Amino acid sequence: MVGVATQENGLLYRSVSSKPRPYDAGGDGGKGLSHVCLERLSYVPVLPDCLRGRHELEEGDARECVGGHEVICSLFPRLSNAHGGHSPLKMVNLHPAAAPGPDSEGGEQRPLRLGVVLSGGQAPGGHNVIIGLHDYLQRWHPGSTLVGFLAGPRGVMQNNYKILQAEELDGYRNQGGFHMIGSGRDAIAKPEQLAAAEKTCLAHDLDGMIVIGGDDSNTNAAIMAEHFLKQDLKTNVIGVPKTIDGDLKNTDVNISFGFDTACKVYSEMIGNIMIDAMSAKKYYHFIRLMGRAASHVTLECALQTHPQLALICEEVAAHRWGLKDVTRQIADMIAQRAELGKNFGVVLIPEGLVEFMHDVSTLIAELNEMLAKGINPADQSDVIAHLTPESADLFSNLTPGIRSELLEERDPHGNVQVSHIQTEKLLIKLVGLELARRKASGTYRGKFAALAHFFGYEGRCSLPSNFDATYCNALGQAAGALVASGRTGLMATVSNLQQPANKWTVGGTPLLSMMHLERRSGRDKPVIKKALVEMGGAPMASYTSMRAIWAIQDWCRSPGPIQFRGPSADMASITLALETNEGQPCLLQSSPEDDC
Amino acid sequence: MVGVATQENGLLYRSVSSKPRPYDAGGDGGKGLSHVCLERLSYVPVLPDCLRGRHELEEGDARECVGGHEVICSLFPRLSNAHGGHSPLKMVNLHPAAAPGPDSEGGEQRPLRLGVVLSGGQAPGGHNVIIGLHDYLQRWHPGSTLVGFLAGPRGVMQNNYKILQAEELDGYRNQGGFHMIGSGRDAIAKPEQLAAAEKTCLAHDLDGMIVIGGDDSNTNAAIMAEHFLKQDLKTNVIGVPKTIDGDLKNTDVNISFGFDTACKVYSEMIGNIMIDAMSAKKYYHFIRLMGRAASHVTLECALQTHPQLALICEEVAAHRWGLKDVTRQIADMIAQRAELGKNFGVVLIPEGLVEFMHDVSTLIAELNEMLAKGINPADQSDVIAHLTPESADLFSNLTPGIRSELLEERDPHGNVQVSHIQTEKLLIKLVGLELARRKASGTYRGKFAALAHFFGYEGRCSLPSNFDATYCNALGQAAGALVASGRTGLMATVSNLQQPANKWTVGGTPLLSMMHLERRSGRDKPVIKKALVEMGGAPMASYTSMRAIWAIQDWCRSPGPIQFRGPSADMASITLALETNEGQPCLLQSSPEDDC
Repeated sequence: MVGVATQENGLLYRSVSSKPRPYDAGGDGGKGLSHVCLERLSYVPVLPDCLRGRHELEEGDARECVGGHEVICSLFPRLSNAHGGHSPLKMVNLHPAAAPGPDSEGGEQRPLRLGVVLSGGQAPGGHNVIIGLHDYLQRWHPGSTLVGFLAGPRGVMQNNYKILQAEELDGYRNQGGFHMIGSGRDAIAKPEQLAAAEKTCLAHDLDGMIVIGGDDSNTNAAIMAEHFLKQDLKTNVIGVPKTIDGDLKNTDVNISFGFDTACKVYSEMIGNIMIDAMSAKKYYHFIRLMGRAASHVTLECALQTHPQLALICEEVAAHRWGLKDVTRQIADMIAQRAELGKNFGVVLIPEGLVEFMHDVSTLIAELNEMLAKGINPADQSDVIAHLTPESADLFSNLTPGIRSELLEERDPHGNVQVSHIQTEKLLIKLVGLELARRKASGTYRGKFAALAHFFGYEGRCSLPSNFDATYCNALGQAAGALVASGRTGLMATVSNLQQPANKWTVGGTPLLSMMHLERRSGRDKPVIKKALVEMGGAPMASYTSMRAIWAIQDWCRSPGPIQFRGPSADMASITLALETNEGQPCLLQSSPEDDC
Repeated sequence: MVGVATQENGLLYRSVSSKPRPYDAGGDGGKGLSHVCLERLSYVPVLPDCLRGRHELEEGDARECVGGHEVICSLFPRLSNAHGGHSPLKMVNLHPAAAPGPDSEGGEQRPLRLGVVLSGGQAPGGHNVIIGLHDYLQRWHPGSTLVGFLAGPRGVMQNNYKILQAEELDGYRNQGGFHMIGSGRDAIAKPEQLAAAEKTCLAHDLDGMIVIGGDDSNTNAAIMAEHFLKQDLKTNVIGVPKTIDGDLKNTDVNISFGFDTACKVYSEMIGNIMIDAMSAKKYYHFIRLMGRAASHVTLECALQTHPQLALICEEVAAHRWGLKDVTRQIADMIAQRAELGKNFGVVLIPEGLVEFMHDVSTLIAELNEMLAKGINPADQSDVIAHLTPESADLFSNLTPGIRSELLEERDPHGNVQVSHIQTEKLLIKLVGLELARRKASGTYRGKFAALAHFFGYEGRCSLPSNFDATYCNALGQAAGALVASGRTGLMATVSNLQQPANKWTVGGTPLLSMMHLERRSGRDKPVIKKALVEMGGAPMASYTSMRAIWAIQDWCRSPGPIQFRGPSADMASITLALETNEGQPCLLQSSPEDDC
């Protein structure tokens, strides 16, 4: 996409007509880009200085695995030892260089052939990673080739692909979704899967394979990197940290991409609902949010919106709270507000909550085991007879709807599909019963009417915020730089995000260094460690310092829709600000005042 | 709020710091305005030229009621005859005047005392109506008083109020929600209710009462206006057209306020989900949208997003489709897409659908009647025994969850609460069964997995779009001008919305002229006629011309989040563009090209 660049809000915009076109039911030229999407095509993300001109890699600190270092090194003998002339387990950083580099006319640099694959759930900004990669490759050598594998890792194994070229890519700049090449949840980890991937890489003569995914996908990227080294394949494997859940995070990865945008979309909706609750003054809204393993999303949304209560799974687990404890907490808040004449409010619930309440997680484990043994789920009295007394008691007290969900909604492995359990409805029912008891005993005199919401799919494919658009572009370019330098088994990292984007640092962190051993299916497995909400971390501290006040005051904060222009358009998430910048907002550019 | 004005995007902005402040968990000064909300405080809506300087009212055409003219006139003898020196049933228009007017230093104009009340469900822009009213009053005479009645019409009857002053109002400029004074669903229509309202108006010595509400609230505004005339009260009553449903619409009311913003919020979410469906390629998303009586919201969202199918209640009623017909249509679309290898898509469902399918509406009517007679809803076999054979058959084939919703969720009048019926889940279940039948018979070979969503509360309190902020401000000022001119029984109207906002026309339309007779509870009642989707109207024609293509192609259109700055920020809804401007976008300002 070429156009005249204009300056606005300090950022470059490619030229775009300022005159909105008439509505065309045929889909705005048949392809359906809305006006805002069209405007976003012309947004030009700031590129970190170290990626602008010529650069070289410098090796940094050597790392150990997060846990089980010895075992993991023995499982990845090549990645954990010197390979291809590079030191093992060292992170690398990009620095400006004097020698000819990607900005030259090609020179001694030969064209590169790279593959790219999207793995796992959608996250805003994925297209910009691919575009950043493409733009880097084109600067490196215009004869380079980018192969996009379709529908996720399966596309790699089945060699289902399309060659990604500028003309097509330009239509996806700063756009949401993964639909350009699709995604999928298959894994490339078993010998036959690795062999299939190897065959595809050979067929395309790939110099590198970029895996855009979450913790499990990046764990598999390390397995693939190790396998390719073993097979003496030239294909280097580089991971890119993607997940709206925000749990792929460590020293070098300030945040995974997509978290910023998804939380902003959810917070927009929550803020709207909170203002509605304050206006109508008659409903409690129980809102479930995505985030199965970690509650970063719920915590960020709480900081954005100031709800009356936000449940944080890590806290539930730390205190070994059960369903009754959680129910009582919610009822306490509601009773307290009723005393103030307030019978409305908002409760945020992380998707994974059911698994973190010890009694419910025990029940689910027992059900999983029982159904694996062939007990008929339709015969509920038989089901109850096979449960431990505690679980049987809990199960009997659940609503029929929730009992059905626990028994009927199972994934292909026979496990309960936690994301299908309507925890918000379960809690509404149980809180209602608890409040009815209190009313009978005279300790509660309020009115309780509640509505349930779930926000998940709404945030995964929205237009990326300026932050995610810029971050993803840098990540893609970083991945390109790592492959061009012949590195493998690294995750592309863009750090120092508390600084303006031109000062972001770029490098690669060994995938192995993010791993520890985790008990899965009865075996210790090396996996990238999930970053859970830290009880002593700044975001949790910020929340706990205020929640007693938010519970009773109506200090609702409505973040409004994501803006792409104007003073607040360049602000990143509050979590990032608190974790990296002492609460000062992380901005893509220094403000005009700072420039003076 | 006073500040230095800046020009941007052609619009005025009051000065605002461009430097985002650090995150303050205490709520940004304790009050919780987010950065975007703070930015919106400084937005200055364009004021129509005719409201800027001095103006006078000119009487226009005389009107007849939409239906039952004679009967309605006999029920409203004062409003339908000359009163206070004004002609009956004539609309009035504001025109610039040479004589001293509200912009003068007060002069002969005495201070006015007005009351204002929000009635019914929340809609984006309500605060701006009140602020427009206040700003008009202050220009009229700085000694004027604005009384805000709290929690809706009940506040009028109970004289529960607060005096609205500039300092407080400035904090709500261009903000969403009704929380400044709250709203409620009580009616002021019965003799004792009217007497209570009369007493309040006398206590405050009110020159006028502004009722911001939907069709029923404005019907009641006419009843109150008639009553006050009868009692020789000086309080004039003026209505303002509010409803996100878009069904309060006629010759003079191009659109009710809130529709524009709410549809944009829903369309943002739907667009995100459509892109997600296209990316993951494994789910059908069934999305229920607000709109009980009319399907304007669903139709606008369909035009914004291009879903695979959108059900329109008016069409369902016109063809007398039943639940089986609707199920079959959805299944046909899904089967057709499965032939193309596509097992994903989006179906939009208006909230009111269950009432428009003839078989379901008959069943609901029978259930309402039966339960009013005291049949025990817990005894489902007894319930079935009391139904007609057709209804009994339908009821037996529903899911247990839906049967419970039909029997248990009843409003205070004993009627089924249609908004609580999860039609999207009912249809998922029935479509699933239909597809299973087709699979068994070999006519369908796809995979069907579906997810349910409901968007309603998310759109009622969001930050109003530039259109709604501007429209509401003009409506409030128009209401002020009508009261100042001693008019009663009118709805404030701002028309000509296809023109830039400075050219909008302003006036008042007799509430009676919008009425017809409707059978309610066995009696003919004069009520303001709801505007349903017209089968031959431009929006429906636009949809029907494309739906066969949208069903099989993936021309999804993701409108993205509402923008307050930039080229598309000033665009109004597609419905308005199609109904008033031949599909050309309605913009708040003429584009730069037009100005040349």
